[in-house]
Amino acid sequence: MQEIYGVVERYIECWNQADPGRRRLLIEDVWAADASYTDPLADVRGREAIDAVIAAAQQQFAGLVFSLGGPVDANHSQARFTWHLGPHGGEPLVIGFDVAVLDADGRISAVHGFLDQVPAAA
Amino acid sequence: MQEIYGVVERYIECWNQADPGRRRLLIEDVWAADASYTDPLADVRGREAIDAVIAAAQQQFAGLVFSLGGPVDANHSQARFTWHLGPHGGEPLVIGFDVAVLDADGRISAVHGFLDQVPAAA
Repeated sequence: MQEIYGVVERYIECWNQADPGRRRLLIEDVWAADASYTDPLADVRGREAIDAVIAAAQQQFAGLVFSLGGPVDANHSQARFTWHLGPHGGEPLVIGFDVAVLDADGRISAVHGFLDQVPAAA
Repeated sequence: MQEIYGVVERYIECWNQADPGRRRLLIEDVWAADASYTDPLADVRGREAIDAVIAAAQQQFAGLVFSLGGPVDANHSQARFTWHLGPHGGEPLVIGFDVAVLDADGRISAVHGFLDQVPAAA
């Protein structure tokens, strides 16, 4: 159960890692090969597709950082948490909410994502 | 996408249907055969096990009813929603939060459940 908190932290790290090589290594470590990622704007499966979604978000929101928006609530192999995307130390521009599900190896098998706040212009 | 709202309503109905025969039929209609249900108190797979979890909750909270606690927020094949358990028309005793995931047939393949309020004595 404790490991799930570390996985969530490394999940956030994936979204912030702008170096393509390091990000791919991190994704391999954190996500299962056939993992799925679904949010209002994306519905993909597999590490390559997940990497592409993250890279596109980084390009769209260059200079902003992802961070946990509050405590991680976990039970069994699942965790829910709110995340922020905004300038370092500033007010979040985007607020989202994810449920991450881990497989038996402790890797993410699925992320179910929702949005709580989006920029007016988005 | 519209169907997901109906599935969530019938999901709540499963938790309220105290007639074992009717509940089993409803579960067969709403849940996939290999569906999983996970919350802080249960982590089960398959309709029979899900039915047993629901039956146990009904026995523990006899006379109380489950209801949606707010709007259902859905994207793709997933929905998040808060639910209440309490006396009909009264203050909820338990407040929970679920993410339900549908398969290609529109049946629930997984519910990821969390608790936001539990009775002090529970």
